Amino acid sequence: MAALIGVAHADDMKYTIGVSVPAADHGWTAGIIFHANRVAKILMAEHPGLNIIVKTSADPASQNNALQDLETQGINALVVLPTDPDQVVNAIKEIKSKGTFVTLVDRSPSNNDTSVRDLYVAGNNPDLGAEAGNYIKKTTPDAQVVVIRGLPIPIDQQRQDGFDAAIKGSNVKVLEKQFGNWSTDDAFKVMQDYLTKYPKIDVVWCQDDDMAVGVLKAIDQAKRTDIQYVIAGAGSKVMVKNVMDGNKLIPVDVAYPPSMVGTAEELTVAHLYDTIPVQGSYILDATLITKDNAKDFYFPDSPF
Amino acid sequence: MAALIGVAHADDMKYTIGVSVPAADHGWTAGIIFHANRVAKILMAEHPGLNIIVKTSADPASQNNALQDLETQGINALVVLPTDPDQVVNAIKEIKSKGTFVTLVDRSPSNNDTSVRDLYVAGNNPDLGAEAGNYIKKTTPDAQVVVIRGLPIPIDQQRQDGFDAAIKGSNVKVLEKQFGNWSTDDAFKVMQDYLTKYPKIDVVWCQDDDMAVGVLKAIDQAKRTDIQYVIAGAGSKVMVKNVMDGNKLIPVDVAYPPSMVGTAEELTVAHLYDTIPVQGSYILDATLITKDNAKDFYFPDSPF
Repeated sequence: MAALIGVAHADDMKYTIGVSVPAADHGWTAGIIFHANRVAKILMAEHPGLNIIVKTSADPASQNNALQDLETQGINALVVLPTDPDQVVNAIKEIKSKGTFVTLVDRSPSNNDTSVRDLYVAGNNPDLGAEAGNYIKKTTPDAQVVVIRGLPIPIDQQRQDGFDAAIKGSNVKVLEKQFGNWSTDDAFKVMQDYLTKYPKIDVVWCQDDDMAVGVLKAIDQAKRTDIQYVIAGAGSKVMVKNVMDGNKLIPVDVAYPPSMVGTAEELTVAHLYDTIPVQGSYILDATLITKDNAKDFYFPDSPF
Repeated sequence: MAALIGVAHADDMKYTIGVSVPAADHGWTAGIIFHANRVAKILMAEHPGLNIIVKTSADPASQNNALQDLETQGINALVVLPTDPDQVVNAIKEIKSKGTFVTLVDRSPSNNDTSVRDLYVAGNNPDLGAEAGNYIKKTTPDAQVVVIRGLPIPIDQQRQDGFDAAIKGSNVKVLEKQFGNWSTDDAFKVMQDYLTKYPKIDVVWCQDDDMAVGVLKAIDQAKRTDIQYVIAGAGSKVMVKNVMDGNKLIPVDVAYPPSMVGTAEELTVAHLYDTIPVQGSYILDATLITKDNAKDFYFPDSPF
């Protein structure tokens, strides 16, 4: 309940923070924009002198322009989630070289050191795979599993390595791995292929919520009842709602939350107003989302 | 300037956070208590429904009692810096097992996983050594250096390893290393010994601000003018003031700030009020404190 409260504010100093994120109308990056605006609103309400400007850019060229605009406008700190880190790193370094505090979110350039940023906030890709592997090992120790990977890039490999390490030495058996390109449609096709090939599948690990939508559709169309459950990852509202509602096919999800941009904003504001050390490297856990904690990850108004 | 401002608060939810830290009347842990109270005050002003209780304990037995008291009292989250982590880990796990959010600061038990804590906030010991080594290598490439270590425990070794890696392959030469037990008096004696043994010393690396006080006293008493500078570490008000005032013997300091407990409080409050993900591992940089950023690390009212 909002209430008008008279309270002594020692923090009515005026600061402007620029937030630069990729443009998107769906998926994980749409979630980024939603949470960037949501948390900006909370923080501005808490700090009357604070102004947070959120800018979205469709590609590296426009993000470079957006960064230059923010610099010209005058900002005390920058929170940036790069479209393509290596293509915008020079614009970020330029801002940092002026003494502006820089918080980098999620995607890091090849050289991610203190010449680029003061604070780095990111998810934990190896742990995203490990949480899924550990859950399968514990819940269904003899499971036959099909895996749908993302794209053949380092993030995907880190997730796969974490998964492989978690199930190593167990009775969990991986029947096959194919790439689904983090796409609902491609994952649908890969899952159709698996369903044709394998008469008995216990578990699907597909590492990503958008891909899980395609997987569920393929299972439903094939009317297969052998699959016990699907584990995805990210924390989209669709999958978190499935967890909350007790959908047996989606008992859990693994967090790689777009709300991490809010964590980055929060710490950047705290650096300016509360004189606490925030420079460093903050790796968020790939928390297992269960019925118990799902409410912390559920945002019905988010596009993702 | 504090001002009475009427502002719409959507965050007048009532939460209680327990903060359990070691008792101390001087040194780094006294700084911990100062910042725990300082940041608690700021956060309670920002969140009218928030209550933060700071408890200090002289030893593991009394900390176990304090933790039990907080649990009985009823808390929504715990921020804990253990006196001795392995001796209080069961009390922490007991609180966490009730669903209470736990933020662990600085000192971690042998098994520091999500069964113990949701969030881990700590300094960066290897980097504390590396920052010192890099500064010496850059500023005085042919320096002859004496080193005063802390105690033969892992933290000390991590700092030494970071330093050794940073100067590897350079012309920086370490004349000798002795333990000073993180004590002003012991470091004074070690430095007296070095001054007797070595007619020319360029740089002292002593890894800790309390030890630097003893080092400066020994140099002053011996009236030696060959020493160009001393690099310590932590960010005490005495050493940060030296940096601010342009004392040539203390051109920089390396941060391992007790204000990290404030960072832990800030994130714990943000978890409760702002629905952002904070579970994870947050390793703060050992920032090089220079004239430019010293004000962010200077708290004249702190005992440390």
